[in-house]
Amino acid sequence: MKLSVAEIAEKIGQTFEGDGGVEISKVATLANADNGSISFLSNPAYLKEVEHSNAAVIIMREQDKDAANSPAVIISDNPYLSYALTAQLLYPASAPSAGIHATAVIDSKAEIDPDASIGPNVVVEAGANIARGVVIGAGSYVGKDVKVGDNTRVEPNVTLLDGVVLGARNIIHSGAVLGADGFGFANDKGSWVKIPQVGRVIVGDDVEIGACTTIDRGAIGDTRIGNGVKLDNHIQIGHNVTIGEHTAMAACVGIAGSAKIGAYCNIAGDVGIAGHLTIADGTTLTGKSMVTHSLKKGVYSSGMPVQETGEWRKNAVRLRRLNELFKRVKKLEKNS
Amino acid sequence: MKLSVAEIAEKIGQTFEGDGGVEISKVATLANADNGSISFLSNPAYLKEVEHSNAAVIIMREQDKDAANSPAVIISDNPYLSYALTAQLLYPASAPSAGIHATAVIDSKAEIDPDASIGPNVVVEAGANIARGVVIGAGSYVGKDVKVGDNTRVEPNVTLLDGVVLGARNIIHSGAVLGADGFGFANDKGSWVKIPQVGRVIVGDDVEIGACTTIDRGAIGDTRIGNGVKLDNHIQIGHNVTIGEHTAMAACVGIAGSAKIGAYCNIAGDVGIAGHLTIADGTTLTGKSMVTHSLKKGVYSSGMPVQETGEWRKNAVRLRRLNELFKRVKKLEKNS
Amino acid sequence: MKLSVAEIAEKIGQTFEGDGGVEISKVATLANADNGSISFLSNPAYLKEVEHSNAAVIIMREQDKDAANSPAVIISDNPYLSYALTAQLLYPASAPSAGIHATAVIDSKAEIDPDASIGPNVVVEAGANIARGVVIGAGSYVGKDVKVGDNTRVEPNVTLLDGVVLGARNIIHSGAVLGADGFGFANDKGSWVKIPQVGRVIVGDDVEIGACTTIDRGAIGDTRIGNGVKLDNHIQIGHNVTIGEHTAMAACVGIAGSAKIGAYCNIAGDVGIAGHLTIADGTTLTGKSMVTHSLKKGVYSSGMPVQETGEWRKNAVRLRRLNELFKRVKKLEKNS
Repeated sequence: MKLSVAEIAEKIGQTFEGDGGVEISKVATLANADNGSISFLSNPAYLKEVEHSNAAVIIMREQDKDAANSPAVIISDNPYLSYALTAQLLYPASAPSAGIHATAVIDSKAEIDPDASIGPNVVVEAGANIARGVVIGAGSYVGKDVKVGDNTRVEPNVTLLDGVVLGARNIIHSGAVLGADGFGFANDKGSWVKIPQVGRVIVGDDVEIGACTTIDRGAIGDTRIGNGVKLDNHIQIGHNVTIGEHTAMAACVGIAGSAKIGAYCNIAGDVGIAGHLTIADGTTLTGKSMVTHSLKKGVYSSGMPVQETGEWRKNAVRLRRLNELFKRVKKLEKNS
Repeated sequence: MKLSVAEIAEKIGQTFEGDGGVEISKVATLANADNGSISFLSNPAYLKEVEHSNAAVIIMREQDKDAANSPAVIISDNPYLSYALTAQLLYPASAPSAGIHATAVIDSKAEIDPDASIGPNVVVEAGANIARGVVIGAGSYVGKDVKVGDNTRVEPNVTLLDGVVLGARNIIHSGAVLGADGFGFANDKGSWVKIPQVGRVIVGDDVEIGACTTIDRGAIGDTRIGNGVKLDNHIQIGHNVTIGEHTAMAACVGIAGSAKIGAYCNIAGDVGIAGHLTIADGTTLTGKSMVTHSLKKGVYSSGMPVQETGEWRKNAVRLRRLNELFKRVKKLEKNS
Repeated sequence: MKLSVAEIAEKIGQTFEGDGGVEISKVATLANADNGSISFLSNPAYLKEVEHSNAAVIIMREQDKDAANSPAVIISDNPYLSYALTAQLLYPASAPSAGIHATAVIDSKAEIDPDASIGPNVVVEAGANIARGVVIGAGSYVGKDVKVGDNTRVEPNVTLLDGVVLGARNIIHSGAVLGADGFGFANDKGSWVKIPQVGRVIVGDDVEIGACTTIDRGAIGDTRIGNGVKLDNHIQIGHNVTIGEHTAMAACVGIAGSAKIGAYCNIAGDVGIAGHLTIADGTTLTGKSMVTHSLKKGVYSSGMPVQETGEWRKNAVRLRRLNELFKRVKKLEKNS
């Protein structure tokens, strides 16, 4: 795909300065760009790279534009967003042709829109409903009564178990498993008795779910993922969790059962959230945070950043007696 | 499935009070129940919800029963267990019909009980033995010499590699990988030389293994999972680990090679256990615990719960000098 | 496979003492060995087991050899390495016969060496190139333009997405996903706009990638895994990460986007490394370490080992006021 600077600026709703006729075929970092590349400056820390970049055009804020030596600049208040929109233009998602591959196994009671694309070795069970524009990648499994909304893309080797409901324009990455049983057992004198998990997984529109991420079905009611939620890889969402709209979670986060995660939250990698908690809308959690109580809106952290192992060992041993140290200090204060 | 209150009480071995003829078709929470629902009160914190619940029948302890306004109550010393058994009655696992799907690829030297169900695109290699009542879900792989015991259910897209042995009545969820090579390398002047992993994975009866959970084969001997063990999603079990009977682990736990985990342990989410340790029977570990030495029976924890990021940052910096603080306090004590 | 002690010693380039004609058919631990077994002593802690071992031959250091009562010993400066090489002799990887299984779906524009083995239900897309000696396991997906180098082994149910490049002699374990989109979004007034991920994943030679490990494609440039890197299970490698040669990572490690991990690093289980950091060559990180800044060569740790929960709770509460404690101690020091 090739577009001129002027075409790009028009399509993303921004203005340009310089030579609007330069043809752009790819995105690149400031450092690696060549004369067919578009790049961007979002973080001012990279301002010094702008001057030496060979990019044909750079997307920048008005106040930064004088630093550029490129044939053109596109002016944007949010260069990273403008970059995202530009990249979507230059790299349109490849759409496989509609139709059902000869090796797919489709139950006669499944409904598949003629405009959907069903890849090789896909299995679609009875009662499933696959809407127009949907792509189901090779080897994926679509269980009974699963609904897949318009233009949702399911990558190869995804597992959508019985009753999962996906909205429109989702992207579900390879290895993801939606609708496996939640972890529910009653204890009977030491041994565990399974509690049938009879709820579903309900996913809104414009959701992205990462590779090898798992979302368990509800125990009684449903597990719910709001519109616009973005989940990275290796995330575990327990049964009956709800995640509010436009919340983003980085990789390896684990959310235990029945937790309520608000909308517009930012949850960094490897955060763990205990069950039955409520996290307020707009909350930010930094990486590896351990959340054992409900949180009001705010920015929270925990964990001990690394230090040299010898030092860490001494501190870790002391940490086991921190409570005692507080008491000793109190005693000193009393006696001083 | 519809059952009367009297039928349910009889089948789960409990007594009821009130109208035994009410027909029940589903389970529900106290808050969402309607007049066809059975609910339960296990945690006294929800006692106030009992009064306003529309459930047709509530499973409760004798001492709580007066709080109910429902047409019937079922009396149980362990309402959660009675609820589990009731849900099993109302939601029997759907059993696909026996037989081998036309698209499955079965080696001529595999043995498959005529009463087993082998789904679409399943691959079964030479020497595998699949017992009666087993269900192998679509797209799953059953390697050479794998044994799958009576009535075990393997969900779609599971991978059982060569020599894995599964007992009876297991449930293996989608994305699980059993029998991949353990992580074993010898160092040769900086580069790594692979150590063939020649042990197996041996799983007992009544085990449940979560989605995307991995259990590595032994390096020399076998990796062993005891009867009644329940593993949630995204768990990593290293080579030559043994897990005692009826131990339960929540999601994202990692157990390094050759660790011996006792029976009847409860291990919460994201716990990490170093290699070659022994964890005693009946041990409990809370979420995100970091275990670097063997443990006697007990309840253990570690980790720093979240606090507001500004406060955390100050504390985390100080933590790096905790050992020094102890010395300063000691000096103050000496001089006081 | 049976080999005499003399044959083994010769093939692994070491000397033996005692009866070179004893036939060896398997490896075993010192404790479990019988008269057809080879065992080894690497860690001196197990020296006392040597005396009572029934092994036919033990690989040991010169200085330890007198402890052995076995018919033969093989002398090696690095017994663990010699054991690895011996096990490779006794357990050669089983090579399925070359050829393409009848159920595989191969695009007419894919190139597959006649000496490669393509398993049942494998899908290979246009432009893919699969070299000689490669094994692609059942159910695996090989996307467009994927390159798989000589003698690389892809286990069942692996997903290699468009453009992934694998070098020679790799082993990719089941459930691994290479080339899924990195986690990149621009924020537009609270909602997230996808940034197309247009880079690739480039993997060197002699790399091993564990079960359910995910390596995301680059956002603009490529994600790069160096020669000889060994990754355990459940690892997450974010977009544009680079990993230097011969670095090893244990299970459940998460590396955020654009981090640069050096060569010859040892990274233990569940370590988390934030984005855009640089970790120097030869760095060691212990389990569950939390890395929030770049590191010079060294050995680093963080995290709080478990203690009894009652004690932990008191300490964890105090930890929230550690900064205050430092101030109190400073005040005491001033006044003393």
